[in-house]
Amino acid sequence: MTKKPVKIVTIGGGSSYTPELVEGFIKRYDELPVKELWLVDIEEGQEKLEIVGNLAKRMVEKAGLPMKIFLTLDREKALPNADFVTTQFRVGLLDARIKDERIPLSHGLIGQETNGLGGMFKGLRTIPVILDIVKDIKKYCPDAWLINFTNPSGMVTEAVLKYTDHTKVVGLCNVPIGMQMSLALMLDVPPEKLRLQIAGLNHHFFATDVFLEGKSVMPEVLEKYIAFSNEYAIKERMAMMKASRENIGKEGHKAEESLSKTPMLMPFSEAFLRGIQAVPCGYMMYYYHTKEMLEMEVEEYKQGNVRAEVVKRTEAELFELYKDEHLNIKPPQLEKRGGAHYSDAACNLIASIYTDKGDIQYVNCKNNGAVTGIDNNSGVEIAAVITADGPKPMAIGTLPPTIRGTIQNIKAFETLVCEAAVTGDKNIAITALNNNPLVPSDTMAAEIFEEMLEAHKRHLPNFFK
Amino acid sequence: MTKKPVKIVTIGGGSSYTPELVEGFIKRYDELPVKELWLVDIEEGQEKLEIVGNLAKRMVEKAGLPMKIFLTLDREKALPNADFVTTQFRVGLLDARIKDERIPLSHGLIGQETNGLGGMFKGLRTIPVILDIVKDIKKYCPDAWLINFTNPSGMVTEAVLKYTDHTKVVGLCNVPIGMQMSLALMLDVPPEKLRLQIAGLNHHFFATDVFLEGKSVMPEVLEKYIAFSNEYAIKERMAMMKASRENIGKEGHKAEESLSKTPMLMPFSEAFLRGIQAVPCGYMMYYYHTKEMLEMEVEEYKQGNVRAEVVKRTEAELFELYKDEHLNIKPPQLEKRGGAHYSDAACNLIASIYTDKGDIQYVNCKNNGAVTGIDNNSGVEIAAVITADGPKPMAIGTLPPTIRGTIQNIKAFETLVCEAAVTGDKNIAITALNNNPLVPSDTMAAEIFEEMLEAHKRHLPNFFK
Amino acid sequence: MTKKPVKIVTIGGGSSYTPELVEGFIKRYDELPVKELWLVDIEEGQEKLEIVGNLAKRMVEKAGLPMKIFLTLDREKALPNADFVTTQFRVGLLDARIKDERIPLSHGLIGQETNGLGGMFKGLRTIPVILDIVKDIKKYCPDAWLINFTNPSGMVTEAVLKYTDHTKVVGLCNVPIGMQMSLALMLDVPPEKLRLQIAGLNHHFFATDVFLEGKSVMPEVLEKYIAFSNEYAIKERMAMMKASRENIGKEGHKAEESLSKTPMLMPFSEAFLRGIQAVPCGYMMYYYHTKEMLEMEVEEYKQGNVRAEVVKRTEAELFELYKDEHLNIKPPQLEKRGGAHYSDAACNLIASIYTDKGDIQYVNCKNNGAVTGIDNNSGVEIAAVITADGPKPMAIGTLPPTIRGTIQNIKAFETLVCEAAVTGDKNIAITALNNNPLVPSDTMAAEIFEEMLEAHKRHLPNFFK
Amino acid sequence: MTKKPVKIVTIGGGSSYTPELVEGFIKRYDELPVKELWLVDIEEGQEKLEIVGNLAKRMVEKAGLPMKIFLTLDREKALPNADFVTTQFRVGLLDARIKDERIPLSHGLIGQETNGLGGMFKGLRTIPVILDIVKDIKKYCPDAWLINFTNPSGMVTEAVLKYTDHTKVVGLCNVPIGMQMSLALMLDVPPEKLRLQIAGLNHHFFATDVFLEGKSVMPEVLEKYIAFSNEYAIKERMAMMKASRENIGKEGHKAEESLSKTPMLMPFSEAFLRGIQAVPCGYMMYYYHTKEMLEMEVEEYKQGNVRAEVVKRTEAELFELYKDEHLNIKPPQLEKRGGAHYSDAACNLIASIYTDKGDIQYVNCKNNGAVTGIDNNSGVEIAAVITADGPKPMAIGTLPPTIRGTIQNIKAFETLVCEAAVTGDKNIAITALNNNPLVPSDTMAAEIFEEMLEAHKRHLPNFFK
Repeated sequence: MTKKPVKIVTIGGGSSYTPELVEGFIKRYDELPVKELWLVDIEEGQEKLEIVGNLAKRMVEKAGLPMKIFLTLDREKALPNADFVTTQFRVGLLDARIKDERIPLSHGLIGQETNGLGGMFKGLRTIPVILDIVKDIKKYCPDAWLINFTNPSGMVTEAVLKYTDHTKVVGLCNVPIGMQMSLALMLDVPPEKLRLQIAGLNHHFFATDVFLEGKSVMPEVLEKYIAFSNEYAIKERMAMMKASRENIGKEGHKAEESLSKTPMLMPFSEAFLRGIQAVPCGYMMYYYHTKEMLEMEVEEYKQGNVRAEVVKRTEAELFELYKDEHLNIKPPQLEKRGGAHYSDAACNLIASIYTDKGDIQYVNCKNNGAVTGIDNNSGVEIAAVITADGPKPMAIGTLPPTIRGTIQNIKAFETLVCEAAVTGDKNIAITALNNNPLVPSDTMAAEIFEEMLEAHKRHLPNFFK
Repeated sequence: MTKKPVKIVTIGGGSSYTPELVEGFIKRYDELPVKELWLVDIEEGQEKLEIVGNLAKRMVEKAGLPMKIFLTLDREKALPNADFVTTQFRVGLLDARIKDERIPLSHGLIGQETNGLGGMFKGLRTIPVILDIVKDIKKYCPDAWLINFTNPSGMVTEAVLKYTDHTKVVGLCNVPIGMQMSLALMLDVPPEKLRLQIAGLNHHFFATDVFLEGKSVMPEVLEKYIAFSNEYAIKERMAMMKASRENIGKEGHKAEESLSKTPMLMPFSEAFLRGIQAVPCGYMMYYYHTKEMLEMEVEEYKQGNVRAEVVKRTEAELFELYKDEHLNIKPPQLEKRGGAHYSDAACNLIASIYTDKGDIQYVNCKNNGAVTGIDNNSGVEIAAVITADGPKPMAIGTLPPTIRGTIQNIKAFETLVCEAAVTGDKNIAITALNNNPLVPSDTMAAEIFEEMLEAHKRHLPNFFK
Repeated sequence: MTKKPVKIVTIGGGSSYTPELVEGFIKRYDELPVKELWLVDIEEGQEKLEIVGNLAKRMVEKAGLPMKIFLTLDREKALPNADFVTTQFRVGLLDARIKDERIPLSHGLIGQETNGLGGMFKGLRTIPVILDIVKDIKKYCPDAWLINFTNPSGMVTEAVLKYTDHTKVVGLCNVPIGMQMSLALMLDVPPEKLRLQIAGLNHHFFATDVFLEGKSVMPEVLEKYIAFSNEYAIKERMAMMKASRENIGKEGHKAEESLSKTPMLMPFSEAFLRGIQAVPCGYMMYYYHTKEMLEMEVEEYKQGNVRAEVVKRTEAELFELYKDEHLNIKPPQLEKRGGAHYSDAACNLIASIYTDKGDIQYVNCKNNGAVTGIDNNSGVEIAAVITADGPKPMAIGTLPPTIRGTIQNIKAFETLVCEAAVTGDKNIAITALNNNPLVPSDTMAAEIFEEMLEAHKRHLPNFFK
Repeated sequence: MTKKPVKIVTIGGGSSYTPELVEGFIKRYDELPVKELWLVDIEEGQEKLEIVGNLAKRMVEKAGLPMKIFLTLDREKALPNADFVTTQFRVGLLDARIKDERIPLSHGLIGQETNGLGGMFKGLRTIPVILDIVKDIKKYCPDAWLINFTNPSGMVTEAVLKYTDHTKVVGLCNVPIGMQMSLALMLDVPPEKLRLQIAGLNHHFFATDVFLEGKSVMPEVLEKYIAFSNEYAIKERMAMMKASRENIGKEGHKAEESLSKTPMLMPFSEAFLRGIQAVPCGYMMYYYHTKEMLEMEVEEYKQGNVRAEVVKRTEAELFELYKDEHLNIKPPQLEKRGGAHYSDAACNLIASIYTDKGDIQYVNCKNNGAVTGIDNNSGVEIAAVITADGPKPMAIGTLPPTIRGTIQNIKAFETLVCEAAVTGDKNIAITALNNNPLVPSDTMAAEIFEEMLEAHKRHLPNFFK
């Protein structure tokens, strides 16, 4: 078929991620002819939007492609006739995330930006904004696909599925593709020859099977993973990964270098890996190495180096680079952030929907029975076939008890956070926290909730009606 | 990867379908390098095996391919190291099918060769033989895929899934692909641009969505189907289809000709089509046009023209053609039988498993949660992604009540037939019949069962232990 | 506790059943002190209301109880502060039921007043009226229990559960208690010592276990049932039962007499009974003896003796009796109708809710997971513990495939009828018919639907908006 | 019916609980005529068996009943023709429990004797012994009901349900009845007028509704519970309850006295109680007050006062009392232990099964669909109707997300512990620990497992095959 030109609207267009996205669209222009890319941001982000937007324009010009970049603070102007709306914004910016992490740590608890205390508040801030965007989508471009990268991506997707009638929504995350690359490195095979069977939720899944050219190599994966786990001390490994992620500073470079030679995986006990017969995603260290993780984070807290603080410094450096008027490609420093997978994941997804490609990708979408025991209308993170009608999850049936409990537990947490975000019900929010394995006390849950609520007051209007 | 040569064993190799299969392998040689094709049959089928086998050899020779054809009556000699075992045999040959159809009709009931009285007896005769084959597969080639074309394909697949531990089994049928071609004709688009969402069981499914280049065109399909339904009288249409299917006689030719210009679909009332919002498979006419169907079949019964009788004559003609030593291609007459889809379906499936292609095909496989309400370990007919690890059904969630009841009903029937086949329990078999919508009386169920049991005694040893 | 006086409102108070109900309340006065009984009817029923109402007053007077009987045509006057609202009306009276039975029979199909063609139309007429009554209940007595005896009782209950937020609803039927009495007769034990495990739907259930003083006697029940089945020819038995039910004419008397000595059960084949390991309810003869049933009903149709016609004559006789001013008890002739169980069932249910008795009764209520595979919010007919918080169904888990298919099939039919009744969607109504095993042709479904729709036009306003 | 005399066999007959049980049988003699009570114990328990057995004999003699007490170390001699087998033993006696508690605390983790580290080891020790007992039951008294009081009662019941074909098993616990009494005290109503809807697992359930004379009083319960929670500091309350339970020492007496005037409930935050709309069972303090609980237990650990150590001293005091040859009633000191409910629960259950009473009790039994999302063949703790055919759980449908996650999580833990107990698979055991919210680190799970395995070696033969 001759290809209809594509219009994309990126909400949170001033994000430091945007150059990757632009590069992704440039690389795929033949397959996915993006004619208009609208970068939308809010007033507070205007300066960044312009820096990033100008870089984007230089990139497109250098590539010599007829792709137009539009910058605007007015969502309603951008949306009409959009084919895809991508969302990648932070309500309250990085300062909000700093609070998400520091306040819990000041009480001796892990913040965790997706499925923990911090993640809950990120959800409470983000979901109402997303639902507003969906209202506008229904009004201005009801056939558009909403591709969400904003964390907590699973909850955001679930909120759209449950609280709107816009079914064209997919949540995205780079953790599964990152695992695929790590396992490829571990097996010493090209990543594109691997395929994972993913079971669980955003930032809370297991690979329950690994296929090399379609054939299960799970036994081999497990043996290698066990050998790898036996080689590395947990805390040392944690420190390396932490330093590397979203970090272009010196320390990060060093970590990058040594990490790039080994899989980005966390060690687990041999017994546990043999017991679950699966590969836990990296975020599982919060739940299965809670004690060690907390010790490390408390250290960072004391040094003013919690993740959000590091990221904030990194972002500032990046924007300095972006300002350089001679820069007309994605700066190589960004590449080191590991965001490459993210960009690839996002552009791949859009291209596959656009071309009805039918390849298998890892997404957040409606469960629809694929995982027995999770409500059909809830969201899951899963391997799905990507078609022009959206992702079609491949059924994986009943979860074994080895991984079922924790997935059900976090699913309940997510469900309650979505409800609290929409209703502004404090009781539900505190109950959500009590359901979270990282919160060891009802009393503390209630206390910290009040403190964080106050701290984020401006971005939580539903709780102050 | 360099391709490992493929060994295929075809049980029931003397079937008239074999030349199509051979042609399919020849056409796909580059993708699927079949080096050995073993055609296995039983003593009673030796003559046919030789006729067909010799034609197969001439076909391969003409194609100039290094594919070796082996003919044998000894399964145990054929199986070692097989990559794929295909099954396409009739226990009791066509004479058994003639009884399956004529005995019920002599009592004023439809025989129906898959999900009716006749189908039950076909299942009772076939399942124990398949389970024996699986025992040999476990012994001689435990990694081989069992690709079953033998009807009732759904029950046979379910029996292997439930009563053996060989998980590498796929059941195949040409009805979904036939529907895809008919709808393509109706929409005037190339069939390969369409994709169906299939919900249900073998010979008992609905297309609950139809995608053109990945986008749902269900509303258009329904309108065209309704217009088509309004144009044709049911009985006339039935007669045409019946004459055409598996028929190369004169009458068939004429029907073919006129049918080839219109979709192979059955008319239904506008209200029903709007009510179900789905396309019923052709076999649904047995359940939704029972009365008309019965009237037609009674007529055929009186004329000695029940389907099996027609097919038997057709087969005889075909074998006359096959004997011709100058024939070294699949005879064009066979093409008219519509079997082309069948062969394509079978070879496509094998090729996609072999190459881990990841395309979407319609197969009978383990439900695994894909259809809510059907047991996870039961079989369904469904659109699945075909990988080297077998078919992965795409989850379709809850069936709407418009189609749920009949699917659950036939699923119960199938489950009971499998149980009766394995145990030889007459009570379960008669209960299965009582669950079948084509059997209107417990008394008759019990009576006809006894008569058919006696008629098929030789092939039902489990009932005479 | 001292008992709060009870107010009961009976919608359709002019029904011939009312004297039984009144007798039930009189008998239970100590346990259930009914102080006010409001009999409500419509204008067309005023004459009957007065006849029945006066009889009721004489009965109460004779009993010497302070129970006040009120007669009114104004529902809104009756409802305030009611504790229980019972519904036992016929929209369109018996003439409508005559059409429900005669029109299908004129096309050679069974009408069946609950789960067949006739039953669907009864549902379409009744459900909107019930939903209106529920609106008034919400307004005038939101804490009242709605006890529905109006057929099709299962669908009516489901409609209230799904299309209103009034959760205090129970559907009632006398078939399970009738089966309990028949099995008691068969086992020669007092009925109150038996308890059934009921699985299924209104008029479409099986007893999957039978307990004598709490211990399963299913093996003995099956052997006796098989012996009984072998003793009676189906058609003869059908005729006897038919004559007896709702019949106080001479023929009925004779049938009564001979039937009263044998269980009111229908014969089934030994194989089927052994296969299902359960006792089918009487209405199952429509589905498992369809052919024989149809033959009998066609005969009745020709003679102007379809059930509704017989009942109409019976009712006329009854009202003649009721008019007798000397009559101050429930006339013994009514006793012979078998309605005694009905009245007992209704009064027992009300008394058990009122006193939080905690006994086990057979009711139609929300499934709530009790039967796996039926939606949690759908209705089922089941053994439940009766408390002041309503019936609590005892979980029976997964239905075996021997009975699962037909129950799922009729559940789908019921669900569609409810939807059609509420929406007035013809397509859904015709699809419901196509799902019904008694309707053998889509063409006929569409045709007969139109004819019946026209015939019942006055009572189906939703279809003529 | 005239009552068949009852034979009861109590495995672990030398337990300090036995006098309560004997008293229970004496009190209920009219209803439940126990003619033979066999107290069975192992060699190590012989002395206690004799002390308790002699007390039992004196009690029966004093009551003047024809109940025979038999003492034996030979199970095979006791079992033949038993009607009920009760199990109340501790594999490894209290010394094993001391290890279950002290070893985890030595690593800074809570031991928890049912659903924590200690509970897992109790399960691993107990389940194989129970399965052996079931083998003997199948051999000597296959119709006997197994009434299990041995903790972890939920896992033990599940193990029997899943790993044997003896379906006559009920697990018992006194926590639900204790909650009923506490709520009665809180509402100031007689306990027998209350009824709870229980959702969850043994020692891990919520009351999701509370009925007073059958009518829900949940809103009132919640308000009172919130007021109560606001009145008490958590840690103080914890200390009081702890001191009181299973303690007849001085400290305990004081705690008893003050506690007897207030409900035995733990305080929770108002937000949480409003969020869950349910009453958490006391053991939930381990999961929702983990931090505070741990602090208290560490203190006890240091003082040599972990629960098992206190209980051990208490038991020694009790046996001193039991030895007194003049004692011929249950000593009043025992009454103070709160065990009264336990005994009542056990005897009530046996009596209701024996008499087919049909009352509602709280038991551990097969889920059978009653709680949606828990496997049908898994165990749950639930309100069930007690019949001669055993407990029939009343369906409660879907759990709200507020309580679903933690129940699913502990259910997964229980399932894995059962599997590990039967197979002796260390990997599964360590995976179970990783699934437990009280274990914050995979590394610690693996380490502590090895230490406890070694400590309990003698009683874990399955792990040393």
